[in-house]
Amino acid sequence: MTKNINIKTKTRTEFVDITTDVQNAVDESEIKNGICYIYVPHTTAGVTINEGADPSVARDIQVMLSHLVPHSADYHHMEGNSDAHIKASLIGSSQAVIFEDGKLLLGTWQAVFLCEFDGARHRRVTVKVMGD
Amino acid sequence: MTKNINIKTKTRTEFVDITTDVQNAVDESEIKNGICYIYVPHTTAGVTINEGADPSVARDIQVMLSHLVPHSADYHHMEGNSDAHIKASLIGSSQAVIFEDGKLLLGTWQAVFLCEFDGARHRRVTVKVMGD
Amino acid sequence: MTKNINIKTKTRTEFVDITTDVQNAVDESEIKNGICYIYVPHTTAGVTINEGADPSVARDIQVMLSHLVPHSADYHHMEGNSDAHIKASLIGSSQAVIFEDGKLLLGTWQAVFLCEFDGARHRRVTVKVMGD
Repeated sequence: MTKNINIKTKTRTEFVDITTDVQNAVDESEIKNGICYIYVPHTTAGVTINEGADPSVARDIQVMLSHLVPHSADYHHMEGNSDAHIKASLIGSSQAVIFEDGKLLLGTWQAVFLCEFDGARHRRVTVKVMGD
Repeated sequence: MTKNINIKTKTRTEFVDITTDVQNAVDESEIKNGICYIYVPHTTAGVTINEGADPSVARDIQVMLSHLVPHSADYHHMEGNSDAHIKASLIGSSQAVIFEDGKLLLGTWQAVFLCEFDGARHRRVTVKVMGD
Repeated sequence: MTKNINIKTKTRTEFVDITTDVQNAVDESEIKNGICYIYVPHTTAGVTINEGADPSVARDIQVMLSHLVPHSADYHHMEGNSDAHIKASLIGSSQAVIFEDGKLLLGTWQAVFLCEFDGARHRRVTVKVMGD
């Protein structure tokens, strides 16, 4: 079972909570136990798992990444978005979450975020549900 | 086959070698070939694979992460552990290791570490063993 | 289906595009739908997915990583390659890519790179193809 989630980001740097969409993909698969893959087919976006309750956590991650990897620097890539490419490799293009009895085994505070580093854009996240 | 590993960390920042526990989960599954997932359901801890022979490697990783992402800075999240959340997203919440003939295909120097960034705490690592 | 890709890197820091080798492993497996794992059994190398069209993107990632994690610093590990170990944990030891109808679901600009951080060396990448 493979399902695409379509997202319209609104600003250059933004974390979008897609936990409900990922759980919906597991629900629709009707598979009870296995692994759920969340894959971002873009090179200036990523996917991470972190706290979803307090939005200031996602904000702190974005601010620190932009401090470590500034938008403007002595980059070779001429499209003005090298920082976004670098952040994508630091955060990663995919995540895997175990599910049991049809439920993602996320921790109490964990949420799944699409990480936009070069928006605003239309983004796609591909979710694959694999049974045992 | 899903198994929990329970760990009691002792300091704020600490890497705990869990390679033996992960191999034990593969052994107990009695599955011979497949993928083993190591998942951390926490937002201020992660999991990485790196050198296990010389403990100074894990120490260097921790020191550099704390240099790049200081404990105290102009963070928005008010719980005093934003650094730990950021490090968790840089390191990642899960790893996957191939196994064959019941043995994890780790390289000669590779070990699996729970990465504690906001201890001391009780932590859980969930291991899932998927056969071919 | 597990397949090894052997690579001879030429310089200390280098990204090697292995996308064709990974697709070849999927082809040889004759499996149509599933997940392809790309695993690096080394502690001073990693694997990432990023832009393959303009080589300056890979170069910018390498330069920024070396700026953040310098080769020489006050490291404890005495082999002179602590920077490479740290970069390996930041980038990660494995990637997973969904495939359908025998084709990796990489985005238009995505390529798979072995990330050498302590070359020149002989490196191995293990690819495992798991069907639905």
